[in-house]
Amino acid sequence: NRQACRQSEGPVTKWVEIVERAASYTDSSDDETSPRDKQQKNSKGSSDFCVKNIKQAEFGRREIEIAEQEMPALMALRKRAQGEKPLAGAKIVGCTHITAQTAVLMETLGALGAQCRWAACNIYSTLNEVAAALAESGFPVFAWKGESEDDFWWCIDRCVNVEGWQPNMILDDGGDLTHWIYKKYPNMFKKIKGIVEESVTGVHRLYQLSKAGKLCVPAMNVNDSVTKQKFDNLYCCRESILDGLKRTTDMMFGGKQVVVCGYGEVGKGCCAALKAMGSIVYVTEIDPICALQACMDGFRLVKLNEVIRQVDIVITCTGNKNVVTREHLDRMKNSCIVCNMGHSNTEIDVASLRTPELTWERVRSQVDHVIWPDGKRIVLLAEGRLLNLSCSTVPTFVLSITATTQALALIELYNAPEGRYKQDVYLLPKKMDEYVASLHLPTFDAHLTELTDEQAKYLGLNKNGPFKPNYYRCWF
Amino acid sequence: NRQACRQSEGPVTKWVEIVERAASYTDSSDDETSPRDKQQKNSKGSSDFCVKNIKQAEFGRREIEIAEQEMPALMALRKRAQGEKPLAGAKIVGCTHITAQTAVLMETLGALGAQCRWAACNIYSTLNEVAAALAESGFPVFAWKGESEDDFWWCIDRCVNVEGWQPNMILDDGGDLTHWIYKKYPNMFKKIKGIVEESVTGVHRLYQLSKAGKLCVPAMNVNDSVTKQKFDNLYCCRESILDGLKRTTDMMFGGKQVVVCGYGEVGKGCCAALKAMGSIVYVTEIDPICALQACMDGFRLVKLNEVIRQVDIVITCTGNKNVVTREHLDRMKNSCIVCNMGHSNTEIDVASLRTPELTWERVRSQVDHVIWPDGKRIVLLAEGRLLNLSCSTVPTFVLSITATTQALALIELYNAPEGRYKQDVYLLPKKMDEYVASLHLPTFDAHLTELTDEQAKYLGLNKNGPFKPNYYRCWF
Amino acid sequence: NRQACRQSEGPVTKWVEIVERAASYTDSSDDETSPRDKQQKNSKGSSDFCVKNIKQAEFGRREIEIAEQEMPALMALRKRAQGEKPLAGAKIVGCTHITAQTAVLMETLGALGAQCRWAACNIYSTLNEVAAALAESGFPVFAWKGESEDDFWWCIDRCVNVEGWQPNMILDDGGDLTHWIYKKYPNMFKKIKGIVEESVTGVHRLYQLSKAGKLCVPAMNVNDSVTKQKFDNLYCCRESILDGLKRTTDMMFGGKQVVVCGYGEVGKGCCAALKAMGSIVYVTEIDPICALQACMDGFRLVKLNEVIRQVDIVITCTGNKNVVTREHLDRMKNSCIVCNMGHSNTEIDVASLRTPELTWERVRSQVDHVIWPDGKRIVLLAEGRLLNLSCSTVPTFVLSITATTQALALIELYNAPEGRYKQDVYLLPKKMDEYVASLHLPTFDAHLTELTDEQAKYLGLNKNGPFKPNYYRCWF
Amino acid sequence: NRQACRQSEGPVTKWVEIVERAASYTDSSDDETSPRDKQQKNSKGSSDFCVKNIKQAEFGRREIEIAEQEMPALMALRKRAQGEKPLAGAKIVGCTHITAQTAVLMETLGALGAQCRWAACNIYSTLNEVAAALAESGFPVFAWKGESEDDFWWCIDRCVNVEGWQPNMILDDGGDLTHWIYKKYPNMFKKIKGIVEESVTGVHRLYQLSKAGKLCVPAMNVNDSVTKQKFDNLYCCRESILDGLKRTTDMMFGGKQVVVCGYGEVGKGCCAALKAMGSIVYVTEIDPICALQACMDGFRLVKLNEVIRQVDIVITCTGNKNVVTREHLDRMKNSCIVCNMGHSNTEIDVASLRTPELTWERVRSQVDHVIWPDGKRIVLLAEGRLLNLSCSTVPTFVLSITATTQALALIELYNAPEGRYKQDVYLLPKKMDEYVASLHLPTFDAHLTELTDEQAKYLGLNKNGPFKPNYYRCWF
Repeated sequence: NRQACRQSEGPVTKWVEIVERAASYTDSSDDETSPRDKQQKNSKGSSDFCVKNIKQAEFGRREIEIAEQEMPALMALRKRAQGEKPLAGAKIVGCTHITAQTAVLMETLGALGAQCRWAACNIYSTLNEVAAALAESGFPVFAWKGESEDDFWWCIDRCVNVEGWQPNMILDDGGDLTHWIYKKYPNMFKKIKGIVEESVTGVHRLYQLSKAGKLCVPAMNVNDSVTKQKFDNLYCCRESILDGLKRTTDMMFGGKQVVVCGYGEVGKGCCAALKAMGSIVYVTEIDPICALQACMDGFRLVKLNEVIRQVDIVITCTGNKNVVTREHLDRMKNSCIVCNMGHSNTEIDVASLRTPELTWERVRSQVDHVIWPDGKRIVLLAEGRLLNLSCSTVPTFVLSITATTQALALIELYNAPEGRYKQDVYLLPKKMDEYVASLHLPTFDAHLTELTDEQAKYLGLNKNGPFKPNYYRCWF
Repeated sequence: NRQACRQSEGPVTKWVEIVERAASYTDSSDDETSPRDKQQKNSKGSSDFCVKNIKQAEFGRREIEIAEQEMPALMALRKRAQGEKPLAGAKIVGCTHITAQTAVLMETLGALGAQCRWAACNIYSTLNEVAAALAESGFPVFAWKGESEDDFWWCIDRCVNVEGWQPNMILDDGGDLTHWIYKKYPNMFKKIKGIVEESVTGVHRLYQLSKAGKLCVPAMNVNDSVTKQKFDNLYCCRESILDGLKRTTDMMFGGKQVVVCGYGEVGKGCCAALKAMGSIVYVTEIDPICALQACMDGFRLVKLNEVIRQVDIVITCTGNKNVVTREHLDRMKNSCIVCNMGHSNTEIDVASLRTPELTWERVRSQVDHVIWPDGKRIVLLAEGRLLNLSCSTVPTFVLSITATTQALALIELYNAPEGRYKQDVYLLPKKMDEYVASLHLPTFDAHLTELTDEQAKYLGLNKNGPFKPNYYRCWF
Repeated sequence: NRQACRQSEGPVTKWVEIVERAASYTDSSDDETSPRDKQQKNSKGSSDFCVKNIKQAEFGRREIEIAEQEMPALMALRKRAQGEKPLAGAKIVGCTHITAQTAVLMETLGALGAQCRWAACNIYSTLNEVAAALAESGFPVFAWKGESEDDFWWCIDRCVNVEGWQPNMILDDGGDLTHWIYKKYPNMFKKIKGIVEESVTGVHRLYQLSKAGKLCVPAMNVNDSVTKQKFDNLYCCRESILDGLKRTTDMMFGGKQVVVCGYGEVGKGCCAALKAMGSIVYVTEIDPICALQACMDGFRLVKLNEVIRQVDIVITCTGNKNVVTREHLDRMKNSCIVCNMGHSNTEIDVASLRTPELTWERVRSQVDHVIWPDGKRIVLLAEGRLLNLSCSTVPTFVLSITATTQALALIELYNAPEGRYKQDVYLLPKKMDEYVASLHLPTFDAHLTELTDEQAKYLGLNKNGPFKPNYYRCWF
Repeated sequence: NRQACRQSEGPVTKWVEIVERAASYTDSSDDETSPRDKQQKNSKGSSDFCVKNIKQAEFGRREIEIAEQEMPALMALRKRAQGEKPLAGAKIVGCTHITAQTAVLMETLGALGAQCRWAACNIYSTLNEVAAALAESGFPVFAWKGESEDDFWWCIDRCVNVEGWQPNMILDDGGDLTHWIYKKYPNMFKKIKGIVEESVTGVHRLYQLSKAGKLCVPAMNVNDSVTKQKFDNLYCCRESILDGLKRTTDMMFGGKQVVVCGYGEVGKGCCAALKAMGSIVYVTEIDPICALQACMDGFRLVKLNEVIRQVDIVITCTGNKNVVTREHLDRMKNSCIVCNMGHSNTEIDVASLRTPELTWERVRSQVDHVIWPDGKRIVLLAEGRLLNLSCSTVPTFVLSITATTQALALIELYNAPEGRYKQDVYLLPKKMDEYVASLHLPTFDAHLTELTDEQAKYLGLNKNGPFKPNYYRCWF
């Protein structure tokens, strides 16, 4: 399913960067011993974990507490869990970035009744203090910043290969954990009630398994829930395009001519923000429906060639490759800024700029001047990688929506009556999607209207939703 | 399917009003003879039609020519038809509003190779001059302004019950033609390749037939195509809310406090326009996903009761009933304006205002003051019916999108290989929807980008679309 | 002072149109007798007035009552007048459009203690019913719709040439009353404390008198008060450009290419509104400071020639002449709409279109198609006169600001200590301007913050204002 | 004149911060010797300067070259200077921040024919490399980062107290240089043609001198030119409010409730940006004219107390003191962000937070959490100092406008015929202001329209401007 690839990679990837940044100033330890070789115990005497340094737990705890303040939806779930424990009996093995926000998720799953064992889905992204705090609280966590390839799989294995404990739920981010169990412990799937997968890549792997008839448990694709998508793309990009450009170039937006390639959700967010700041925005599109929208929203629809000589900024948001070619780059005017908000690093043909006649000058972190023989300079941001991941930040509010979606997907799969979900990949039911949204409304002091009985009957709806059919993706 | 009812009734209904208005100044004929009793011939000697007065043809022709200028997509189809005739052999019986825009559609169908016979779908909406012009050009048209109920069915019958001619396609608006054939000439369906239906009501009737297993040919629901929906709702309402309020009340928008009930496409259009004009807009919603969007778009989400005392304008866009109750009306402040942009006339409980203690004062066409015993006045627009249909107009551009969608649906059904479409109700294929959009891009001098072979391969797409999957409704 | 001419003519002119429209449906009297030949008495037995028909008073009273509801500032002044009568002893002779709004002003002046006598400043603009209602309430009013030139001066004379009554204040609109007194009763100026003038033309005449050393009393230019200017220009045009275009052409704004000539207040209002509705807007300017603003606000600054072939709409807002020439008109594309929001009817060279090879076709009231030999049509609105006056309406709120400014100017001049104002033309003191604004804040339920003593001292301001120096015109 | 103090301090102050930041990573020299004790020569053998290290010249030159690219107006002046030298014979003594942008200004003055001697107006703000580059090019510069108070005055003295060279023009920023000459070398004023002053403080001092009758040469207040003001306030703040909040807090703007105190230019910029990003914005004002604008622009006008419990962000832009009091701070909700975009650091009563029961926690540079006994946290940015200066950057484009204004003011004063300017403080003539604007239009590829002879005559204007009267400040 190529469609899936056409969107931004989403906040989990962003966690990496945040974590790396955070880590850079916290991890001043010069301790070179591998965590695997250390003997550590938490204050309750347990040593069922493997982290960099259990003594950093207190600092990690503070980070978690700050994150809790900005993740009210998960905190609300915990509150509800005082009465019922929808995950009682759940044994969740997880493999995600390990950050303060993940910690809030894990401790929420714990409060909901689940047992958890956790590894990192990325060798660089673990925040050691947070891992320590989790270990100190009794969570078997196996992760540290700077794992080797071998460490990575060792950690995952330590999560699943346990005497007397067998997982019945999987929370995965990228599919490595799922892959490992498929490969090493296929029998484990007999007890597993379902997989919750968050990443584009992981979802892709699940669909492939499904097509090949090899998916042996239900899987929930939480990447494509409506609420999560809107926040990962439209709302997040509307702000991060400005932030990313400002932090790297200190440019003024007013009066600048900008071309945005692609008018999907990411492009729409970029265009809206730049227009609001007084830029003159041109749009390119391949799809006539999106193109017509760009027109109605007040943007000139052009081919890139028509405006390439005159624009001050080029932004790619297509999910496509080589949208900006060397030929385009050759024709840009002096000081033109080029950056990518779309997928991966393929949209701008950066490789074509690695030729002898061009000089590269790194003028700041994430900012290169590429200089033509005649002195013309192009300002390339983040070497063509995602600008908002590289040069901006992701608000905790966006991460909160992702984490809440994951928690609800786990609850749904774990509690679904036998047979509701087959061995297939599912989208989050509309009602759960609506519930994620509703849990985030108090942040805005927003007051939802309730249907009267008479109105519900008139509309043929249940008063508690879902308010839109399951196939509904459009009117958001 | 109640969902379908939750949207504005769309431009065809609007044709009525336009036509009525137009007719009011053109139809000064004091000729009281029923067209059925007249003997008329067009200049080529044919009398296979029944219109008010064939002599008005010239005036009607001018109206059609003006409409042609604003319907470039149909004109483009005609141009393409110089090479191929995709409707060669098609015998289309149609039942729609008969206006200049319909005439452009009919003559386009003719240019594409079809034979057409036509009746009106509404007893008031026929523009007599246009009907005359069509008859003069050789189209068998049976319609006039002010038909009786009996005339109405007589006209429809004259279209289908013809010696030596049998329709193989139906273009319907409301389902009356389809119903008549079902009832009177069920055998006719053996030769019919498909039905194209445009209205909410007609589509609803088709789905009911389908559920009951009685639909015996494929039907195309063109009401719910993405392009048409966006223009009928979001884009059209964004402009018509301002127009409707201005024409009725001459009010100033700046600084006014407005509550918009419902944040679907219609509500989004209303909110965006009023915010842009400097109004302070509050939103009510029942669906947490739409509610969250309202928040992110900068609107306070409230319950109606919270703001009802302070707002200057109340606008309903919910598709629900009794959203504004007598209790709300009692609490509104003096001079508060109340109007409906949503579905039908159920949203405001207007009936509750028909009580002895309240005085109604008609201050202008479509504007009533309802006066409370203490002198408080509420300004009720269009008696709670749709404001944009009653007090605004619909641009030809919106009608052009509808007509083009109808033409393409006819082509699709007529040319589909045997078996592609079953006896069911279909949405317009994504590719056709994209084609409708693409035909309207030249209006904006918009230039679409084409995929390179390499890019198409990378994305797994055909270079000519569709660019989104058929189930895709969301990212518009 | 040519600057003064560069702005829209303001709402008083607009009164004409409103009144004319209103009158058209109310004045169905077939009474052809000149009011000057009629013997009429009001219910109190007075015959010191001359109106069309005193019997229409009741209908006029209702119009006045409705206007009162939307002129809260004047009503607030009346309330304050229950304590003090700042115009006690004032004998005001007035010459303005006679509409419901003027009536509210006159009755307010009465409540403030003044005696008034009134004539019309325009032979067409009197609303007969309102004049009747005023006469019935005891105001000596001399005005009717359709005065002859002779009637016009006769009415003015009846206001000033009265046995035993001599005016001590003048409220003028256009300068005709002032001119008459100068010419016929120059001695009257000995008792006159001041002139309040509202129109661009009248102000111009006063400045000329002043320059020539012939102004023998203080005059207040209320046309150029900050509050009034902003409402007449920026805020009023922001809404009326949309209204005027919609009522005449029913066009859709989304995606349309528009060029706005001139980026003063009127141009800014037009640009902001059209951009908000999804149009693509280009701007032309002669002044680099305004040009730079257009850039920063997100508009491409071009010469008219650069875009004339591609735009869908041309709007002039310059105050200049021949901004759109025949050469431009020749190059416009088919269906291009041309209209004027600026000064007078000079901006578009309409005369150049009155040539034999072009055909004019009146397609609607205020809408002409001008047709080139090759069939190209240009849509000319209001024959190049002001679009918002001809094809839109002016909200009562704007008229309320003008009327309040006039009332306060009268109070200021009447109560000013001897010698504060010389024989010169003055702008309304900043403090009064602020007071006009403050009287309109309750309409928006707006709550002003008050300075603490400490803050006032820190800022060096009086707690009651003025908050800006008298020369201040900028930061609005 | 307290008014003058009510605006943001402008870009020059911002230079300090930029320079400091820049300096922090370039000045790694561990050389502790005072520049006054060093013997340095540039490559041409001159030692008429005193900088940190002449060897850093090359690095400084690169900074200057980059700045030149973004200051096209000054470069255009240089180009024009190839023909004429309007500052030939000028001997300018300057005292400003010494940055790359100043260097471009100085070298432009040189190209225009002037001789310059320069000191720093701030002991921290000198960019040593730039000073070195200027010295290397032959400019007598006396400045380094980290001067002592004694060094500061010594440097200024070295500029003016020179054998065989006497200044005839002063370019000052803050008034210290002017003050020094008044105090030490009053006779020097006999040859001085004028002072150009850029800062609020310096202008204030000049007005005081003028009032006291002690100003003995003409002075030009360039701080209050229209173009500069708009960029320092409205346009610059529109972008920097978002940047400042994002860099410090990584917050999401969508749906946030914000109160902006003050609706002058700074407030207008903040409100427009936040509204565009989906925040819900409330405004407080003391001036009813500004208040009415806030209403018409779509903001609820409230008293701070009405919304203080519910808002997520409080921004002060008043120029007033104690706008946010301890009482307000006590009532804010948890996590409320408080910051200042207005004048100085008086607007928020930060001192009131320095009490024992409150805990301060520095969570990031420029970000403090102030924690109440019950755990409530307030997020205070930049300790109440100017957010945009402390936590954002100022675009070179804004600095370019300031520098160009300074250059033109020098040219104007130097070339004015005897007697045009008295011993008073002047605003930049409108025509010069327009010229500054016009020099910046090419940045936007903006094309100005020229009046025809006929039009110029009609408007009574010179074709080359000024296009507005000198007193004109309003319609920008």
